[in-house]
Formats: sequence, structure tokens, C-alpha cells
Amino acid sequence: MATQSVATPLPVRTTKQNNIHPLAPIDRNEINNAVRLVQAQWPEGTDLHFKSIMLQEPAKAEMVPYLEAESQGSPLPTIDRRVFLNYYLRRTDKFHEAVANLSTQTIEFNARLGLNMHAPGDAEEILALERIALADEGVQAELAKLQLPAGAKIVADPWIYGSDGINDDDRLWQCWLYMRDPNNSDEVDSNHYAFPLTPAPVIDTVTMKVIRIDIMPSGKDATPTGPTPYKPVPPSEYLPEYQKLRRDLKPLHVIQPEGASFSVEEQHTSSIVRWQKWEMRVGFNMREGMVIHNVRYDGRALFYRLALSDMNIPYGDPRAPFHRKSAFDLGDAGAGIMANDLKLGCDCLGSIHYLSAILTDDKGKPLDMPNVVCIHEQDGGIGWKHTNYRTGRAAVVRNRELVIQSIITVSNYEYIMAFMFNQAGEMSYEVRATGILSTQPIDEGVEVPWGTVVHPGVLAAHHQHIFSLRVDPMIDGHQNRLVYEEAHAMPRSELNPHGTGYYSKETLVEASGGYDVDYAANRTFKIQNVHKRNPINNKPVAYKIHVPPFQKILADTESFNYKRAEFSDHNIYATKFREEELFAGGKYTNQSRGGTGVRSWADRKDNIVDEDIVLFVQFGINHLPRIEDFPVMPCEVIKVAFKPVNFFDKNPALDVPPSSQDFNKSVLLSDNASKAVAQPDACCAVNGKSSSKL
Amino acid sequence: MATQSVATPLPVRTTKQNNIHPLAPIDRNEINNAVRLVQAQWPEGTDLHFKSIMLQEPAKAEMVPYLEAESQGSPLPTIDRRVFLNYYLRRTDKFHEAVANLSTQTIEFNARLGLNMHAPGDAEEILALERIALADEGVQAELAKLQLPAGAKIVADPWIYGSDGINDDDRLWQCWLYMRDPNNSDEVDSNHYAFPLTPAPVIDTVTMKVIRIDIMPSGKDATPTGPTPYKPVPPSEYLPEYQKLRRDLKPLHVIQPEGASFSVEEQHTSSIVRWQKWEMRVGFNMREGMVIHNVRYDGRALFYRLALSDMNIPYGDPRAPFHRKSAFDLGDAGAGIMANDLKLGCDCLGSIHYLSAILTDDKGKPLDMPNVVCIHEQDGGIGWKHTNYRTGRAAVVRNRELVIQSIITVSNYEYIMAFMFNQAGEMSYEVRATGILSTQPIDEGVEVPWGTVVHPGVLAAHHQHIFSLRVDPMIDGHQNRLVYEEAHAMPRSELNPHGTGYYSKETLVEASGGYDVDYAANRTFKIQNVHKRNPINNKPVAYKIHVPPFQKILADTESFNYKRAEFSDHNIYATKFREEELFAGGKYTNQSRGGTGVRSWADRKDNIVDEDIVLFVQFGINHLPRIEDFPVMPCEVIKVAFKPVNFFDKNPALDVPPSSQDFNKSVLLSDNASKAVAQPDACCAVNGKSSSKL
Repeated sequence: MATQSVATPLPVRTTKQNNIHPLAPIDRNEINNAVRLVQAQWPEGTDLHFKSIMLQEPAKAEMVPYLEAESQGSPLPTIDRRVFLNYYLRRTDKFHEAVANLSTQTIEFNARLGLNMHAPGDAEEILALERIALADEGVQAELAKLQLPAGAKIVADPWIYGSDGINDDDRLWQCWLYMRDPNNSDEVDSNHYAFPLTPAPVIDTVTMKVIRIDIMPSGKDATPTGPTPYKPVPPSEYLPEYQKLRRDLKPLHVIQPEGASFSVEEQHTSSIVRWQKWEMRVGFNMREGMVIHNVRYDGRALFYRLALSDMNIPYGDPRAPFHRKSAFDLGDAGAGIMANDLKLGCDCLGSIHYLSAILTDDKGKPLDMPNVVCIHEQDGGIGWKHTNYRTGRAAVVRNRELVIQSIITVSNYEYIMAFMFNQAGEMSYEVRATGILSTQPIDEGVEVPWGTVVHPGVLAAHHQHIFSLRVDPMIDGHQNRLVYEEAHAMPRSELNPHGTGYYSKETLVEASGGYDVDYAANRTFKIQNVHKRNPINNKPVAYKIHVPPFQKILADTESFNYKRAEFSDHNIYATKFREEELFAGGKYTNQSRGGTGVRSWADRKDNIVDEDIVLFVQFGINHLPRIEDFPVMPCEVIKVAFKPVNFFDKNPALDVPPSSQDFNKSVLLSDNASKAVAQPDACCAVNGKSSSKL
Repeated sequence: MATQSVATPLPVRTTKQNNIHPLAPIDRNEINNAVRLVQAQWPEGTDLHFKSIMLQEPAKAEMVPYLEAESQGSPLPTIDRRVFLNYYLRRTDKFHEAVANLSTQTIEFNARLGLNMHAPGDAEEILALERIALADEGVQAELAKLQLPAGAKIVADPWIYGSDGINDDDRLWQCWLYMRDPNNSDEVDSNHYAFPLTPAPVIDTVTMKVIRIDIMPSGKDATPTGPTPYKPVPPSEYLPEYQKLRRDLKPLHVIQPEGASFSVEEQHTSSIVRWQKWEMRVGFNMREGMVIHNVRYDGRALFYRLALSDMNIPYGDPRAPFHRKSAFDLGDAGAGIMANDLKLGCDCLGSIHYLSAILTDDKGKPLDMPNVVCIHEQDGGIGWKHTNYRTGRAAVVRNRELVIQSIITVSNYEYIMAFMFNQAGEMSYEVRATGILSTQPIDEGVEVPWGTVVHPGVLAAHHQHIFSLRVDPMIDGHQNRLVYEEAHAMPRSELNPHGTGYYSKETLVEASGGYDVDYAANRTFKIQNVHKRNPINNKPVAYKIHVPPFQKILADTESFNYKRAEFSDHNIYATKFREEELFAGGKYTNQSRGGTGVRSWADRKDNIVDEDIVLFVQFGINHLPRIEDFPVMPCEVIKVAFKPVNFFDKNPALDVPPSSQDFNKSVLLSDNASKAVAQPDACCAVNGKSSSKL
């Protein structure tokens, strides 16, 4: 295997390349190497505009034997390191994909992509678009018509253009314009969403020029609003210095005097996290952010790969230009590149371990992304409890949780994403939606059924948040099946003479497709391995999926919104594993046309019984804004959970040490101390005293 | 107003009666007084068996003006103190209800109740039933046939009999029999649910004798199992000393160095809790446990009364005697009388305030119930966050929550119930189901579709847990209405040419009745006050109800299970307020026949538009047991939330102080200290540094 120490002029690590784990994100060196290999395909000096540079994960056929060998301590197979890149010839529409094999120092693939394949945005591009929109003479002329107050500072929010099929084959952006509070124009963090303006310039990314200025409708119908002079409205700031802050909140500290119970083994660019029988590898890339591989519990295989696949946010206002507002925050931007630099004491509470990442900029240079992931433990309340009412003896354990969290900012919105694990073998994925509503102007006294007036002159349109979590399971092995269990009333019969009986029934999902939860039937999906049976009841080992209800996409099936959001119409999509099928909305969602995502893959109707299956689990909210969501919204929390069903031979949290005052060191506030404080070493195991009165 | 210091021979408090708040639970003195008044109705020496002795809450027509006066500091109206009692003439079926007016020292009502009105169980009765079942000769003879190991210790779980209309007009109990681990018979806390036995004696509560011994079926059909000699099976203990405990869990302490942010003003038998603009009165009674009155936020009225109304747990096994298993844990027993004595460091973490209560025993004597409620604050993760990607300045606050919690043990099961309040004006009610499954014997190799084999020879039958939370709202006043909002796709039109539009639509609920959530329509119920309008968008102020899906009762509509569980078939029952309509399953659920609960009240089809309305909010789980739920089940968590909608004029948590390291004192575990630790006084407000890369 070639090393790069000779070829590169840059400082190199001494670590040999084959010491890098095949699933570890690419490092600084590898980024530079891959860029060099791609650049060498082009005449010297060709200006490439890089969009994504990521590890090309090894084929599963290679990776599974590697992980097996690793878990058994056997000699490890050799797997080539590959890098996936995409890029434009700068200021052209020539969008390319390439795969660089670093082990062979060759470019294995390098081709221009076809029509309607567009790259996501990037930081440099977005800042440039803001400048271009604001400097444009046409835009200035439109703004002048509004007779804004002297010294008004305009802010542009560039948005992914969306698709409507009308002259939109070129890669475009649309900017929403806002004003800072005109009485406080120097406040760079003023909430400009309280001052939306009607002009909405469109910029072509080849010419980087404003090609059109849409004027928003701000009345009851689709008629663009004629220039109306600005009428003063109050600001609505979210910054603390503009609030009269509460003074009666006392500090609450989470202290782990002996340190945390988890360990993080940082292996170059990825980390092995071990906690309470759980073990997994945590990586990070520009598109998905956190990627978790090889999740095992007590050595048993559970998940090959877990990552948020994409999210879609279609808006309900039917009028141009709003009808195109339908963002894919991962495909159009990237959950990794938008990750917040988390700060101690701000974003997590307790004893925190941070992970950093190396991503890339538009020039293909490594970009440090400090503290993009935080890891900590939290108390999840009581885990289980039972009191024997005859003796009064209580047994109780608390539910400790491990949280692996990342927070992203997508223009106005924030998402807080966390993988959570507990001591009962349960894994969950939580999303908290917060941040600021994307606003638009509305005339005084007007009400519309597709949005809420959240501030004088400010409309927040209804929108859906639809998330897709990709789950590549390996429940005790890679051959799994999807079933669903339902509960049904029994008809009256000799067996059921009183009409009280009901039964459960399991249905096998035989073909890839989109499937829905039926809450009225208590339908619950389970990932089963029929080759492994529970030692007690001989049922196949399984994990079930708890998924909260969400309203499926409301855009009609002929609309681009529907066609593009290929994951938005079912609770669960199940497919047979294929390489490259990671992104439920398709690899390139920006101005996409549909036909490249999970709906299309599932349509193959592959047999998925006892195969290597992949699930895309959807959840979300239909956000009909409230006044209370402005100027910044209280978190809306959504959670998907995966729980063992006949996977263990008893409650796996049975061996959690009892909750005791010795361990927990709680503090008594009330004055009934003698009664409430338990004996020091047996706090929850007081024999012979009835703690229940029945 | 008469005081009792003259009349009573017992030691009395010096507090004058009119200093007791009208909503405060009855005290020791009042209990004794009421019992004396009732006893005086009967010939001296009549042995009364008391079942409930509780505050008869004042009529709302009296209470509302009182609370108004109280909030305005006006002189308080006088309200008579009344006590509600029910009792049997001991060892008869003569069940009575009485109301004692302590202010006038009169009995206002005292009457025998009719057919099919039976009292709940009580602790003394249950312990007596255990003794009677085990001592019965017939039972001993049946047990002898099983050839149990020498020294086997039998345990009886008395269960509410249920209803099937077959010779069940008398008040009966059924006992499930189990054995302790025969190899460890002296372990008084052995999990006997791992050794279920087939005989199930029935006891009449007038004669207190075994009148019948049912023999359970343990095969595939309803045939009772003939006596088969015991075959050894392993035990399944949940006690810590029988486990090999994990050794890698490090302590996690919640420390509030300046104390808690809430205050508890204990006013005699109830408490005013104040926290973060919230204020409420917390009481407690034998049936409902926690009762919360007069909930206000920033002085504004929200809820007149909140309490769990009842719960129903019908089982799916259609065979006798299991077809009658359908418990109402509040109506048949009582969430107050079954409340655990909570211990510091065991049941809550952090700085805890405990509340105690005084209930009564079967002789009408006051019974101390220490520490039945715990109050504490917890960190609920991030409350809201936004980062300005242009400047990198993040604003973030954490979501502190106040938890008012009680835990009950109902024979095998445990429920952890909590009212939770946050800084964004949101209230939620959480139930955690834990404890031990109610088990029954099953023959080796047999599988049934109505249950899961959780241990060799042990079947845990499917069962539903259906909870009903009673919510008596006063959203900015007592005249409220119920509406529901839905989101629907717009048909294509000139306004919606691309098929992307959708709109929300509000529907008024005009008549009392049972109503359901339609998740596909995003149907959300809201409690509105149209007389109070939002100052910004002129919408009626409202609170919306977030209710998770649950499968409605599966027993057929002609079954007693269905008829009795009057709340079990709809997400929401809405009624017009009437006195005495507190308990959704009826006042007397034990062996009830239906027709006395919320389904019947709602059937009045009262106008509920801008009236004093009451909502019963249902939620639950259909528990198809897993192996992982045995011998004790990991908590299953269900939560209902109430959130403001256009009630405030902006995010009410905007004034929460920023999350900062100075305040939170988190600890850095990773070695990238210099990067992750924010500046001491501005941790989350670092100007000019991009914390997001986009």
C-alpha cells in the first residue's frame, strides 16, 4: 500500500495509513491528498469549487468481515481508503463527482453529473450571495420604494431556490430580505425576522448576478404587494440584554465526583464510546453530522450504521415565491458543516466530553470544526421500581442515559439532535426544533389560513418538519426481517363468551416499500432475527420501533414538493441494502426533481425477508406557528425509540445498582427530615415497614 | 361558626376552623369530628367499616368567588366545611354514603346505596382476604393436589372481582395464588409472580369465606387445568442481592448550592407551590392522590382543578376467570391510599421537598401518610437556542422544570405520576408504568395469542392501561370552549397552482361528547377563551392539548369491560361542569355495571360553547409483554402536554437568564479544554466568532 509521505509537500502524520480505521472520517492529510489527486485530473490552475469531501465508506461486503475479525481479535483484512468528492469548475454549472482511492493513489471515478443535479450551498457561497443581493442596483431601487427609515440596515437570508419547473434548470438562489430594528441598526444580532421586506431577489450561481426580483404578496391573495412606505413597528429581540430577565432561578449543577461512567477512546478521527455494556464508533461528516457505526450491547450486534438521513421542510403558503420553500437541510446544506461549536456550560449540563471534526471549505482545504459533538450522561428518572406491599420493601433503580448530541443552525432554524442510550438496552433518537421562524410580511388586519401573525406585520407560514432517520440494523446478525404486530379484538365465541378477549398478530413485511403505523390497531414495527431465538419463549429476537405520529406531507402527489421529498409519505420505508443508498431524499436534493430517493429504491419491491435490510424511520411536526414561537421558539421535542423485544432473557436493567442516598446524595428541603431520610446504606430496602398502605 | 374544641374529647388544634382553606384536605380533627357525627346516626356500638373519608370540596359556585376574592385581597366569603364519607355496617352489604357539615355540626346526607354499588378495597381488608384464602381448607386441598415441594410458602394476591353478570351482585374478591421460590422460601420479598398456581379462590366479603375455587386454564383453551404435580423451574428475583450488579456506574449528583427556585407554603393540610411565575395549591386525597387547584401563571388563571380521574386495566385473556380482570386502580383502590412513602435519594434526585398527608383507616381513624408527594426541579435540556450564523453569537437558555410527583403501588404494578411545569408556560402530566406483570400459569410448550411467556411456566397476558386525566380549565376565566384545529391540503387552484399549499381550519365542538384525535389531519384540541384576545393577532387565547396515540379499549361494546370503562373509547371527553362529576369511570367502579361515568355525562349533549367546561383526557398503552418486562418492567413513559397558543404575546421563556458556565458549572472531560471552555461571563454570547460554519 502506498503511503503519501513522499508525494505530499504538506506536513504529514507519522501514523501509517493502515492504522486508520476504515470507518474513521478522513483526516487533514487525506483531504489534501484527495484534493491533489482530483486537481491533477485538470489543467494546472483550474479553479475547482469543492462542495463535499468525505470518506467514501467501504462497501459493506468488505466492512462486515472486517468488523467480525475486529470483534474476534483476528487479523484484519486490508481495505482501501477512498474519498468521495464533488465539485464545480468554479463559476460554471459543470458539477462533478469523483472517488479518489488513497491506497492506490488513483482516481477511480470522475464524471460530470447531468441535468438537475445541483450541489448544496456552502458558507463562502452564502456570504457571497448576501453581498451580491444587497449590492444589486435593482434591489436597491426596490428597497428605495419602501421608504425605509434613514440608516436602515438590510439583511439577506439566502435560501435554496426549490423546484417548480419554471425556468429552474439552472442553479439559483432566492434571498429573503429583512431589516434590522431601524432604531437600533448597529445591533448586529438584532432579530431581523421581525422586519420582513417584500422584494426577494433571485441569483444565478454561474453569473453570481441578480437575475430577477420577486415581489412578495403580503395581502390575502397572490398579488404581489405594491411598494408601500414603511410604517414603524416595534422590534422583537431575543437577546438577553433586551429582556427584563427573571431573577428567581437558582443554579442547578450536575456533578459526577468520580467522573463519568463512559469512556471515549479517540482513535484518530473517530471515537469508540463505551458505556454500560454499550459500545459504538462515533464519526462525523459534512452531510449527516454524527454517524454511529457498529452499535453493540454486551457484545451483541444491534446496528451497523445510524445517522439522520435527511429532513424536509415544505411550507404551506401556496403563493409565489413561497410555493418553492421546501428545504432539505442535510441535502441542501449539511448537518455536519452547520454544526455549532458547543460551549461548556451552555449546551450541555454536567461532565461533558466534546468531539471535534475536520471538514473542508470550498477550496478543498481542511476546516477545523471544534466541539461539534458533546457526550454526557444524564439522569432519566426512575428506571424501574417495585414495592412489596406486604413488607414495604421497595426496590428502585434510576435510569441513567448516555447522550451523544449535536446542534445545527440552518439559517433561521436550530435543531438539537441526540442519540440516547439507556441501561435497559433501549436506544432513542431525539430532535428538538428551536430557533427562529422564517417570516414574511403581511398587511395590517389581514389573516390567512396558511400562517399565523406572530408580530405586527409579520407572518409565519405553516410548515412541516419531516425527518428521516436511517437505521441499518444487525440484530444479532445482518439477516433481519421487518414485521409488524397488531392487537385486535376477538370476536365472541365459546372461547370469548364475554367479548373481553383480544389477541396480537404478527405480519411479515415481505417486500421493500413504504409502510405506516396504524395507531388504532396498535401496529408496532419490529426488526427480527428469526435465526436467533429467545432461550425462554423461543420467539425470534427483535427490536421494536416506537414512532410518534406525524402528518404526512400535505403537498399533492403531482407536486414537486411531494416528488422530491421521497421519504415524506410513510412512517417507515424498508429497503434491501444497496451501497450508496444513504440519503432518503436523494444524493442531490437542491432543486431536485424526485426519482432518486428512498421511494424509488423501495419501489424495486425487493424481497426483504431475512435479508440485509435498511429502514428509514420518519417523524416530524406540522408547525402551525403560535405567538409563543416568536421571536425564538421553545423547543418542540420529538423522539423515536428502539426497544428490545424478547432479545434478552429478562429485564436487562435488573443489574443496575439500587438507587440509594449514599450514591445519589440528594438534599432534603422540607423540615420532615427524620421521616424522609432513609437509613444510609439501605435507603430503598427497608424491611418490615410498609411504604404502601394497601 | 361552631368550633369543635368543646365537643371533642380528642386533643384539638388551636387553629380556628375558618382559617382552614376551603380546598385544604380534612385534618385529623375534622376526620374525628366527621366520624363522630356519622357514628351518632347509629345505635351506640354499631361497627362501621369506613371506606372513604375525604373533603367534600365546596361547590364551584361558592369556590370561584372565594378564589377571586383571595386573588384580589378582598374579604373572604364563608364556606362551610363538609366531609364526604362512605362506609358499610361491618360484615354486611349495607353500603352508605354520608356528608357531614362540620360548620353546622350536622349530617346533611346519609343513605344506603343501591344494588351494584360497592366500595373499593382497603388495606385491612386485603390482608384479611390473604389470610382467609390461605387458611381455607378447600384451598389447602387444591394446593395439596399440586404436590408442591415441602416447605413451599404460598402467597395470595387478592384482586377486585370484576363484572361478568354471573352471580356477581354480591361484593366478591378473587385471589391469585403464587408460591415463593421453594428453594428460598424464607425470602419474604421473593418474586412469587415467577411461580403462579392454578387455584383461584373467590371470597364473599359479607361472610368473609371462600365460596368457590376457580381452577385456571393453563393450556391453549379454556379447559381448567387438572392438578399436575409441580415441576421445578428457576426463580426470577428482582432484589439487588440476587443480581450480579454492574460495577461501572459512577454517581451523578444534582446540586442546588443556593437552594431550589420554588417555595412551598404549607398551609395546614395543603400547600401553595410557587415557581417561575407559576402558582398552585397542592392537595391530596385517598382516591385521586395529588389534586392541584387554582393553577395560575403570572397571575393569569389556567386550571381550576387537575387530578388523575381514574385508570382502567382490562386484560386480553378471554377465559374464565381472567375475563373479569379489569381493574380501576383509583376507583377500586385509590391513588392516595396506595401512595409510596418516598425516600430521599431513592425516588427523586436533587433537592427535594416532601409533602405528607393524613388519610383514614377502616375504623375511621386518621392515618399518617408520610412523604406521599415529592417536589423538585429538574433540568429539561435546552429550552431554546438561536445562533446568528453571521456573527456566531449564540443565545441559549435551558429548560428548567418543576416536578410534583407521587408513586403508587397497586398490588403487582407501580405507577409514577408527575405534574410538570416549565418556563415556557407549558404543563404536562407524565405517567411511568413499572412494577411486576400480573402472571398466570402456562403449560410447557404452549403459546397463546393473548400473552407472552416471560419465564418458564409463566404467562403474562396482554392488557391495556387506559388513564383519564380530569382537567377543569379556566383559561383566563371560566367560560371556555373546546375547538380542534386541523391541517389540510389545498386543492389546486389559481391560488395554489403547484399543489403545495395547505391551510389550517378550526372546528368548534358544540356539544358534550367523546372526541378523538385524527393524527392524519394533525387534529389538535385547544381550550379557548374567546372573550380574551391576543393583543397582537387578535386570536382567542388558548391552551392546546398534545396527546399521544393509544389504542382504545378492545373489549366489545356489549361487554361489561367496555360499559364500565366509560372513558376508554375516546381521546377526549368534554362535558359541561357539574358538581360530583369527578370520576370518569363512575364513583363506584368495583363490580360496577356502567352508566355512571363520563360517557353517560357526555351523552347529555350539553352546550359546551363558552361554558364552564371540563375535559377528561385519555392516554395509555396496550401492553403486550416482552421478556424484558420480567421480573420487573423498565418504565414505560407516557406524557400529555398543555401548551399556550396565542395566550402570551411572545415566547414566555424569553426572559429566562442565558445558560452560562458561570451559572451551570459544567465539567470538561475531554482534553480540548482551551477550545471548549467559554469565556466566564459570556459563555454563550461570543461576538464575532462564527460558531456555525454556514
